[in-house]
Amino acid sequence: MFYTIDILGTIAFAISGVLVAMNKKMDLFGILIIAFVTAVGGGTLRDVLIGQTPVSWMKDMTFTYVILGSTVFAVIARNKINYLRTSLFLFDTIGIGLYTVVGVEKGLSADLHPIICIALGTISACFGGVIRDILGNEIPVIFRKEIYATACILGGLSYFLIRKLPIESDFVFMISGAVVILVRLLAVKFKIALPNIYRA
Amino acid sequence: MFYTIDILGTIAFAISGVLVAMNKKMDLFGILIIAFVTAVGGGTLRDVLIGQTPVSWMKDMTFTYVILGSTVFAVIARNKINYLRTSLFLFDTIGIGLYTVVGVEKGLSADLHPIICIALGTISACFGGVIRDILGNEIPVIFRKEIYATACILGGLSYFLIRKLPIESDFVFMISGAVVILVRLLAVKFKIALPNIYRA
Amino acid sequence: MFYTIDILGTIAFAISGVLVAMNKKMDLFGILIIAFVTAVGGGTLRDVLIGQTPVSWMKDMTFTYVILGSTVFAVIARNKINYLRTSLFLFDTIGIGLYTVVGVEKGLSADLHPIICIALGTISACFGGVIRDILGNEIPVIFRKEIYATACILGGLSYFLIRKLPIESDFVFMISGAVVILVRLLAVKFKIALPNIYRA
Repeated sequence: MFYTIDILGTIAFAISGVLVAMNKKMDLFGILIIAFVTAVGGGTLRDVLIGQTPVSWMKDMTFTYVILGSTVFAVIARNKINYLRTSLFLFDTIGIGLYTVVGVEKGLSADLHPIICIALGTISACFGGVIRDILGNEIPVIFRKEIYATACILGGLSYFLIRKLPIESDFVFMISGAVVILVRLLAVKFKIALPNIYRA
Repeated sequence: MFYTIDILGTIAFAISGVLVAMNKKMDLFGILIIAFVTAVGGGTLRDVLIGQTPVSWMKDMTFTYVILGSTVFAVIARNKINYLRTSLFLFDTIGIGLYTVVGVEKGLSADLHPIICIALGTISACFGGVIRDILGNEIPVIFRKEIYATACILGGLSYFLIRKLPIESDFVFMISGAVVILVRLLAVKFKIALPNIYRA
Repeated sequence: MFYTIDILGTIAFAISGVLVAMNKKMDLFGILIIAFVTAVGGGTLRDVLIGQTPVSWMKDMTFTYVILGSTVFAVIARNKINYLRTSLFLFDTIGIGLYTVVGVEKGLSADLHPIICIALGTISACFGGVIRDILGNEIPVIFRKEIYATACILGGLSYFLIRKLPIESDFVFMISGAVVILVRLLAVKFKIALPNIYRA
């Protein structure tokens, strides 16, 4: 089941990359690269930082096939992709929930401090988008608006809190992933943002 | 012989970096760094992704000396470099041909899937230029125009096709490198580009 | 003592990141990330290139705490930080002196050529700022002005010169760090820059 979720997240990330790349009038190769780095960039950075190489997408071809498929689909359906905006938002939100917890657990298995694990979870979930924006020559959108990374950080925190309870590890995984998803959904629904420090 | 070609490619990449950096009015240090990342950035990213560290240019000083020499030369001859444009284009094209096949073979020796090997070849050949453009605050040129990466992908594909024939491995290397070079030369000569998806 | 200096450098780097991020009107998360990459980005790149992973800040929590503290402080004191400009300049200069020599010694312990060691020292000291500027969508400031990287290169060179003298290794460390600091201070005081190659 986690695997299915993972693939939904990958699809959402890849398509968000395609949309950004088309917005920048990139050619087909550029679109494919941006789809790819958006989908796997965060996990790749995480793997490189902790030294787990070759990085994970090089060892499991599913990601490559899913990204290629999503890219072809999104380019062909480019005029209709707007109808999917809500689904994509949901996939993306589910994706960051999952990626966050996967990143946290990779940090734990490398014996790192909880704060570092939370950072790795946030990197896994958010830095694909950061690299996408850098390649598109923009200041990364997650540095400027929306509760996005914050949802990942809160989910990572909850992982370490819940873990102390007498709960099976699968549930720890699911609940903390759900925290990421919930925080993001609530933040978008109620237009909650980080406090603005630029007034007066 | 491959080594000589490698050095020609390094010279072409380094000088292309110098030209971009001077265009951005960078100082001498900036010019040197851009020359360096253009020449070794792709191979460095490849090595980091598959975990072959310290990365290769740190272990063979030839690259460093060639890049330093090319940079000094290009800065001194900056008003006359236009006369060399055709040679540089040829060196660059030969360079990506060679880098592509070297990248493919590094992927094979790390036991990776052919598609990943082709990706590594393309990264080796093209991502020095991508990093150069990011440091110069531009959307990478290979995402926007020209058959460039596509030539590398086709060369990588041909590597795996030719390999099935009863041919010596040196020839597989040379023929697939030649495919990259040929595709690029033909694409430039006949102004072939990827299909434009932005019309109507 | 070196540890204290290291922390002063980290503080200065983190605060310089905060200032750049606030200039770009980033939100609190963005500010924190920019503070972080400015402070640890150079050392992280160095560690990844030579394959010393997990990278060093993941293994010593002091850096994380110092960066978190400096960020909170700089955000709260944002209207008064101008009074600290001279101290910050000094911390930063001391920081690059130290980071340079630490980088050189990491290269030596990985058995790399002196020129590569000097490059690693310069990367350690300067590339946090480079990544900061890329994330803020600017051409890196050290590519355009000021003796900054050049001070690191000269300090690295002096390390290998002094090392040949019959001097204890602690002194080699201190003297070459001092060379970086001195060159930078003199360059700023006397407005020395790299030769301008763009005139006529």
